[in-house]
Amino acid sequence: MNLQEKNLVQQYRNALLDDVIPFWEQHSLDTTHGGYFTCLDRDGSVFDSDKFIWLQARQVWMFSMLYNRLEKRSHWLDIALHGADFLRQHGRDEHGDWYFSLTRQGRPLVQPYNIFSDCFAAMAFSQVALASGDETAREIAQQTYLNILRRKQNPKGRYNKAVPGTRPLISLALPMILANLSMELEWMLEASLFNQAIDTCLNEVFSLFLDQERMVLREQVAPDGSFVDSFEGRLLNPGHGIEAMWFILDIAERKNDQAVIQKAVDVILHTLEMSWDPKYAGIFYFLDSGGHPPQQLEWDQKLWWVHMETLVALLKGYRLTGRPECWEWFERLHDYTWKHFPDPEYGEWYGYLNRTGEVLLPLKGGKWKGCFHVPRGLYLCLRELEKLTAFPIPG
Amino acid sequence: MNLQEKNLVQQYRNALLDDVIPFWEQHSLDTTHGGYFTCLDRDGSVFDSDKFIWLQARQVWMFSMLYNRLEKRSHWLDIALHGADFLRQHGRDEHGDWYFSLTRQGRPLVQPYNIFSDCFAAMAFSQVALASGDETAREIAQQTYLNILRRKQNPKGRYNKAVPGTRPLISLALPMILANLSMELEWMLEASLFNQAIDTCLNEVFSLFLDQERMVLREQVAPDGSFVDSFEGRLLNPGHGIEAMWFILDIAERKNDQAVIQKAVDVILHTLEMSWDPKYAGIFYFLDSGGHPPQQLEWDQKLWWVHMETLVALLKGYRLTGRPECWEWFERLHDYTWKHFPDPEYGEWYGYLNRTGEVLLPLKGGKWKGCFHVPRGLYLCLRELEKLTAFPIPG
Repeated sequence: MNLQEKNLVQQYRNALLDDVIPFWEQHSLDTTHGGYFTCLDRDGSVFDSDKFIWLQARQVWMFSMLYNRLEKRSHWLDIALHGADFLRQHGRDEHGDWYFSLTRQGRPLVQPYNIFSDCFAAMAFSQVALASGDETAREIAQQTYLNILRRKQNPKGRYNKAVPGTRPLISLALPMILANLSMELEWMLEASLFNQAIDTCLNEVFSLFLDQERMVLREQVAPDGSFVDSFEGRLLNPGHGIEAMWFILDIAERKNDQAVIQKAVDVILHTLEMSWDPKYAGIFYFLDSGGHPPQQLEWDQKLWWVHMETLVALLKGYRLTGRPECWEWFERLHDYTWKHFPDPEYGEWYGYLNRTGEVLLPLKGGKWKGCFHVPRGLYLCLRELEKLTAFPIPG
Repeated sequence: MNLQEKNLVQQYRNALLDDVIPFWEQHSLDTTHGGYFTCLDRDGSVFDSDKFIWLQARQVWMFSMLYNRLEKRSHWLDIALHGADFLRQHGRDEHGDWYFSLTRQGRPLVQPYNIFSDCFAAMAFSQVALASGDETAREIAQQTYLNILRRKQNPKGRYNKAVPGTRPLISLALPMILANLSMELEWMLEASLFNQAIDTCLNEVFSLFLDQERMVLREQVAPDGSFVDSFEGRLLNPGHGIEAMWFILDIAERKNDQAVIQKAVDVILHTLEMSWDPKYAGIFYFLDSGGHPPQQLEWDQKLWWVHMETLVALLKGYRLTGRPECWEWFERLHDYTWKHFPDPEYGEWYGYLNRTGEVLLPLKGGKWKGCFHVPRGLYLCLRELEKLTAFPIPG
């Protein structure tokens, strides 16, 4: 595959601007009660109207980010503010913690047991503040960020079902998201707080969660980073590990740290070798590091976000290191992803395929899939491909 | 299929006594720390040693039930007491609520957030008390049962993540299990308490959870039984609904209530018509009553317990009504189940198949599959088939 021949830049740009973003512009706005519909069937029709904070916030982020970084379309800013107003009005409890979900009208449904709601809300209001100059949006982002740091030691709070002390575990998800979130919020954070935050993330991800032997990331470890031989300790989530690595590549690029860049690329490649389905292609959703049966019945399914995040990670890795394996894997992933996920008939991309690559659920959005991984991945790949046109590409 | 020709009684008896029970006798006893291993790989090797109260209690029930109802093998009683001792020593918190899981050594891992742990513990100690005459076992069963009734209105307690008042929902699982549990514990309950309990279950299951139009059971409804158009409200779990119906058939047979018997059989047959996979055969795990994509990514998988419970329900339904559809469906289910689930090479039965009927996870036991649905189903089918030999069977 030759970059110029295939016109990859155009392919990613067209999918983003002529297919995916228009789908959400057309189908997701709740003009009656505010916010967005995210449960969209194959053709864009709304099949459920509950509002999940993760997805509301991610769509706010997406449209304001495109406004800030791609093009100043006022329609995009309007859509972002439409969601931000709904979140501002209904999203938080009396402590400023973000609920997990709301009814269509904005009444709270599920308590703030999930700190990632807060992470995505902080990202969203940071981009909105950048786009609109709204000082209250900046304050919401900053307060939410500090709140996350405060809750970091016990993110599930009173909803934590683990008996204290028996088998303490820490999760990759939080330092990983904080790496990305801190980069997003750098413009509003004091330099010392920002530097400390990204150094902590970098250190935690590599010193605690990295399986040094396999060079893949574990989902959960003991607080000292040691392996815990249990379902939780053996769990591998390849897409998560790879996504974490491009967050780390962003930090390492900013710090110009070549050792970290090489290490992150090593992890991306080892994770792919371990998790690529040799029979039907695609990346498995979950694996057990001991080769035992995982608890997750969906372990062999092929999910959109796993493949999108891997495309991003491989392009960043290739641009930063020039390692040919990154480009070879990118070509393989690109072919698989574009063959299986887009829906040329109704637009946007499927999210859930079974192991063989058939569509498992025809939805375009649901409780977990919204206006986020597909357009973010297309945007980031587009940017990487633009930068790569200045570099030699294997032809 | 002719009952005598096929020698079905012998087939179910042999599988129970020469295959399934020996597998657990041989592989599941933890002779070092007490209790049972339930995470058994295809060949019976232990791949995880955590002890889940559901499965510990169910195995205690299974072995003491066989001792009480099938044959007085002292080895079976020993195995039951081996598990009961471990549970008695480690299973409860200071309020008498049953933990969800323990370490191999018996230290509490996951808090008592799940009231079904208590339900299975009560069943277990009731059978142990019947088998051994141990008064303290009877007391544990009775206290646990009263505890369940006390916690019934808020079974998840402080772990409930729903915001109170916004969208209250009640679940089929609790009245359904209480139907079965109350029958199990009848011998130790005061007649008035027992009669009230089974009448409440019968009334709740049919007046609140039955979708009168489709004649299938909903998993969750509003407290007044009305439909709630949300992921939770639309969820159908066909195996659960069918299992609930044989619990109800047991009650209806005891009360000699022909109307309830016919109604329960109607529900079984309608549920099967709705949930049978027309393409690959087998019963789907989850469906959405509106035909929308369910949240559960494992929705199209074929699970052992769903098929075992359906075999039991169809034989009970056939014996009690003589309706030919019950026998026709039984033959279809019998053929599918025996073709796909047993593992003739290493013994016992697989639990998790993908939609096409291939083995998805090779385990014989895990976090949710233990020594329960397969042997209970084989035992109950065996008993029904024995009774049916006195009746005319379509030949």
